[in-house]
Amino acid sequence: MKIAVDAMGGDFAPEKIVAGAARAVGRFGCEIVLVGDEEKIKTLLAKEKVADNKKIEIVNTTQVIEMHEHPAEAVRTKKDSSIVVATRLVKEGKCDAVLSAGSTGAAVTAAQLILRRIKGIARPTIATPIPTREGVTLLLDSGANVDSKPEHLVQSAVMGSIYSEYVFGIEKPRVGLLNIGEEETKGNEQALLTYPLLRDNPSIHFTGNAEGRDIPKGEFDVVVCDGFVGNVVLKFAEGLAKTIVEMVKDAIKNGGLLARLGALLIIPPLKKLAKRLDVSEYGGAPLLGVNGCVIISHGSSNEKAICNAIGVANEFVNNNVLQRISDTLAKEEDAEQ
Amino acid sequence: MKIAVDAMGGDFAPEKIVAGAARAVGRFGCEIVLVGDEEKIKTLLAKEKVADNKKIEIVNTTQVIEMHEHPAEAVRTKKDSSIVVATRLVKEGKCDAVLSAGSTGAAVTAAQLILRRIKGIARPTIATPIPTREGVTLLLDSGANVDSKPEHLVQSAVMGSIYSEYVFGIEKPRVGLLNIGEEETKGNEQALLTYPLLRDNPSIHFTGNAEGRDIPKGEFDVVVCDGFVGNVVLKFAEGLAKTIVEMVKDAIKNGGLLARLGALLIIPPLKKLAKRLDVSEYGGAPLLGVNGCVIISHGSSNEKAICNAIGVANEFVNNNVLQRISDTLAKEEDAEQ
Repeated sequence: MKIAVDAMGGDFAPEKIVAGAARAVGRFGCEIVLVGDEEKIKTLLAKEKVADNKKIEIVNTTQVIEMHEHPAEAVRTKKDSSIVVATRLVKEGKCDAVLSAGSTGAAVTAAQLILRRIKGIARPTIATPIPTREGVTLLLDSGANVDSKPEHLVQSAVMGSIYSEYVFGIEKPRVGLLNIGEEETKGNEQALLTYPLLRDNPSIHFTGNAEGRDIPKGEFDVVVCDGFVGNVVLKFAEGLAKTIVEMVKDAIKNGGLLARLGALLIIPPLKKLAKRLDVSEYGGAPLLGVNGCVIISHGSSNEKAICNAIGVANEFVNNNVLQRISDTLAKEEDAEQ
Repeated sequence: MKIAVDAMGGDFAPEKIVAGAARAVGRFGCEIVLVGDEEKIKTLLAKEKVADNKKIEIVNTTQVIEMHEHPAEAVRTKKDSSIVVATRLVKEGKCDAVLSAGSTGAAVTAAQLILRRIKGIARPTIATPIPTREGVTLLLDSGANVDSKPEHLVQSAVMGSIYSEYVFGIEKPRVGLLNIGEEETKGNEQALLTYPLLRDNPSIHFTGNAEGRDIPKGEFDVVVCDGFVGNVVLKFAEGLAKTIVEMVKDAIKNGGLLARLGALLIIPPLKKLAKRLDVSEYGGAPLLGVNGCVIISHGSSNEKAICNAIGVANEFVNNNVLQRISDTLAKEEDAEQ
């Protein structure tokens, strides 16, 4: 197992990316190729304790795609950028997966242009696990594409089901369509057209419309929606969780000595909970639908997030997610003929 | 001030609706017309302490529009339903506002058909206040319409600004367009087309794209989006807040005696916070864009929520929101000519 890591992408790149990769070598025993400014990476690596130095390589690149750049244009012109070179390593069979915390648009575009889409998939989709009371709900698409057609949402549902089954071990994942009401007749045009397609698809276990409140409840294992809606929901969740924590802190701070003492006492159980809610615990979301394992990490990824994202890449590859998706799509195509 | 209350709409109707209305008479000094099954309402009212019995009237109706019914069809055929009769009381000038916790679709349709839209407004919009760290953000449209055109979002922005200014007292409310990135070039077709229209509109103070995480942060006073997205976000917030509270309770329960003692100590400050986050504190969201004050309450509204929603109706009417919206739209039209 060898994973290409875009060392230059992310708010805390290359420092935290290199540190996370170094940690992952010891934790998962996989090999890592750090792609980026060789000199900088070498200096950073020298400060890290690496379980096995032979397991980390560096591939030097001279360009970086910045967050504000237009993804398609940047990927086409910056041929020696870290994300393009890292993705190419997967294409050439030199690596099993690529991971980036840089521009999501650039990572998605590089994947589409270099790795190409799986046969039968019109648009790749980002599958983000959202923690629920007792498990996770996989939300997709959470930002790869907007203005999706109904068939794109169906493809998301099929790929999300496979991921949920083989990576999270959920038998017959319950698939929901994100909508504004339970009834089949509710929704916008996209949802109304998608509902019957999901209901009639034999590759998935469709259990109806999921309303916004059903996502955190955990009544669905896979929830599909347009990437615009998914991205808004995901970022909203992030903001809301952060705001609630801040409000609780404010309340305790202004609540006097007893409240502060009480807070100390409940810190241990709450820490465990915070760990479950922490996005960096998942570290990365797979981009499903391209010929290769591509893991998208949050721009604000720290060392732990990058290490965990490398874990996600390991699981993706070890569980043959790619092959299973291709097999299912081929079966669907056979059935149609 | 006289407010028509749909006594038959909502999960806890007519009990909690009648109780909330009875409470509001004492609190706001306004008159209430309870619209619904007269006999049931009378029995319930007999159990309530009303500050001034002369301030509550009953208008008997024989029909109810249920949640699963098709709104337009039901409003057209059930002429003696509580929501239709209550809305008509506003049309006829007998009441200043109408309030319902029943089917949102039915309330919106009744408002459109009976009260008609304000001149210059193509689609009415629901404006829901979302609590932020220090104030509220008004999210609209939160569910009146889906597949909105850019001009509908602009109308939402104009009406939301006026509401924010005159009801929440915010000078020059900061208006954001809900989107998946900060840059003008980000988004789906709807967002891309809406951005320049908002930027160039002289009636509002547009401050750019708002990402999901910006809503709870409180960096915008008014956030506009399609009703599909707004409804998903709103219900997601509701579900997430509830799930986090349950998870905290689980964590404390499983955290042993010290954690439980700690929880007792922080209850008082957290209660204050919970009150701020509680949706029933706002009670209702105004439907903006029709010729009348229409307040939409959550289906699960309790007595307090209904009472507070009547407070929202009072503020709407006292602050001349309707007149101010009409004036602004007329000015815009003049400028265009």
